[in-house]
Amino acid sequence: MSSRPLIATVIGDPSGIGPEVCVKALETGEPQALSRVLLVGNAAALRRAAEVCGSALRFAAVPDVGAAKYDSEAIQVLDTGDLKPSDYKIGAVSAACGKAAFDWIVKALDLAERGVFDGVILGPINSQAFKLAGVAQRPDSFAPPNTYQFRINGPLRVVPISEHLRIRDVAAAVKKARVLEVITLVDAALRKWGVASPRIGVAGLNPHAMFEEDKAEIEPAVQAAKAAGLQVVGPISPDAVFRQALEGQHDAVVSMYHDQGQIAVKTAAFAGACTVFLGLPYVRVGIPHGTGHDIAGTGKAQHFTMLAAMKTVAALAGGKGFLSMPREPAPVQ
Amino acid sequence: MSSRPLIATVIGDPSGIGPEVCVKALETGEPQALSRVLLVGNAAALRRAAEVCGSALRFAAVPDVGAAKYDSEAIQVLDTGDLKPSDYKIGAVSAACGKAAFDWIVKALDLAERGVFDGVILGPINSQAFKLAGVAQRPDSFAPPNTYQFRINGPLRVVPISEHLRIRDVAAAVKKARVLEVITLVDAALRKWGVASPRIGVAGLNPHAMFEEDKAEIEPAVQAAKAAGLQVVGPISPDAVFRQALEGQHDAVVSMYHDQGQIAVKTAAFAGACTVFLGLPYVRVGIPHGTGHDIAGTGKAQHFTMLAAMKTVAALAGGKGFLSMPREPAPVQ
Repeated sequence: MSSRPLIATVIGDPSGIGPEVCVKALETGEPQALSRVLLVGNAAALRRAAEVCGSALRFAAVPDVGAAKYDSEAIQVLDTGDLKPSDYKIGAVSAACGKAAFDWIVKALDLAERGVFDGVILGPINSQAFKLAGVAQRPDSFAPPNTYQFRINGPLRVVPISEHLRIRDVAAAVKKARVLEVITLVDAALRKWGVASPRIGVAGLNPHAMFEEDKAEIEPAVQAAKAAGLQVVGPISPDAVFRQALEGQHDAVVSMYHDQGQIAVKTAAFAGACTVFLGLPYVRVGIPHGTGHDIAGTGKAQHFTMLAAMKTVAALAGGKGFLSMPREPAPVQ
Repeated sequence: MSSRPLIATVIGDPSGIGPEVCVKALETGEPQALSRVLLVGNAAALRRAAEVCGSALRFAAVPDVGAAKYDSEAIQVLDTGDLKPSDYKIGAVSAACGKAAFDWIVKALDLAERGVFDGVILGPINSQAFKLAGVAQRPDSFAPPNTYQFRINGPLRVVPISEHLRIRDVAAAVKKARVLEVITLVDAALRKWGVASPRIGVAGLNPHAMFEEDKAEIEPAVQAAKAAGLQVVGPISPDAVFRQALEGQHDAVVSMYHDQGQIAVKTAAFAGACTVFLGLPYVRVGIPHGTGHDIAGTGKAQHFTMLAAMKTVAALAGGKGFLSMPREPAPVQ
């Protein structure tokens, strides 16, 4: 990629902390150094947030992507002009803000799917505001179908072959074809993101990876991937593979069920964890924290998650690989 | 407990690093400060190890437990006198050493079961030596039946309700009666070990603890334990409960299957991890590392695991609770 990637960040619900965490993250200058930054939302909300945060950043509203000037000193904001400051109050959940945040997300994802953006970050949204606006049943309604979740937590990067299955249904979902599909997707994503020779560890299903499915389904998938030239090891004992990844032995781990990987990811707890959807042509990340309506407007909101997301998406979309993140246990969610 | 607890440590295979790690651990003086120390093995092997390690510790062989003098300056060694230095070579696996280590373990466990010891530590043994001696099929032949494994890894302490089940069989093993049994055992053990008001976290079985078994089996077990006056919370999302324990919210976690807890334990990796069998009247710990025959006799063996075991068993058997251990990732096993 010759030029810096174009990354769109939806500011999230404008009555919450979204605008403030965007301002504080951009105040560091780091996202701008790695990418062309476009915010999607409301310029007035961002100016108010800048004032609250004591930031001198300036924001320029543009009516469409073509009008954005990334060499400008002002941060470019794709702002359709539908939301006025008088439509809502900072710190108050409202239908107006729910509707606005929803529309901005739809617009950003639509442009991303049409190849306009190299990456998209979805800022914090509020399910109650969505409900008031009548726009979506759940915030995760935006989860794209037929994708896998690539979870990044410091040196621990994990892709489960299934999500919220019951434990009693997990074994039946471990099939050679699916394991091989995920290995192949992970390898392709890692290469695209800038990892030249991806090393993939594949977890077994059962204790010490020594039972039926480990031998009959996972082992043949690993062999097939190896035959196709991939650097892949497994099945590895589930209680060892994540430790190995933490120690740098694997660029990513393919896990056999949701909790197998999530227990490791949440226990290890590096700062700046985020999740990318695998199987999309652009790099997409959602901000996992809420809208913090109780502290919105005070400038107290922590911007580390937003900054890490902006940097991670920029680095991956720009083919620069994974950033090093400090070990800093995150609070329990 | 008015006097210091009596802790027996079997030195393990005398041709391996067992005697050296005992010497180096006792050289710190810490186990002696917490407990009455009795080694079970061979005094000559320990004297040789002390020489190798540059230790001035002295060892007194006693033919039976009654003859041990714990106020002596010499470390007391229960030594039946059956093994001579000429019977084996340091660093060489042999039938003689396999037989000796086996006999010492049998003797120590027999005395412990008769109430003579408050705690027992089993030093490193060699499965090949056992095989040559024809004494046991596997080193884990000593695992006591009808017990649960209480795994200690820094502030993370986990007891699974089952061990090496296949994932497809895990859900069927999650029954109210068993969950309640383990909660009750954990509570009793924690009180005995010196935790005045144990707080127990119970993991759910399924993602976010929101499926059938979570509601139909685990939730009623937690309610029954609460009704009996125990401080217990659950079912908690499996990907959150271990993080909560690391942050000090639970004194112990009851987990629903082997890997659920082991993934967290091995990923968090504190120094000095060890496993106590729950359901025995004495505190019993096995040393999880091997006999290091390749470095035996050089004094290079690391004694941290043995020292942590000696201190942990002494503290628990003495009702002093859990020791604080440094966060230090252990090498992958």
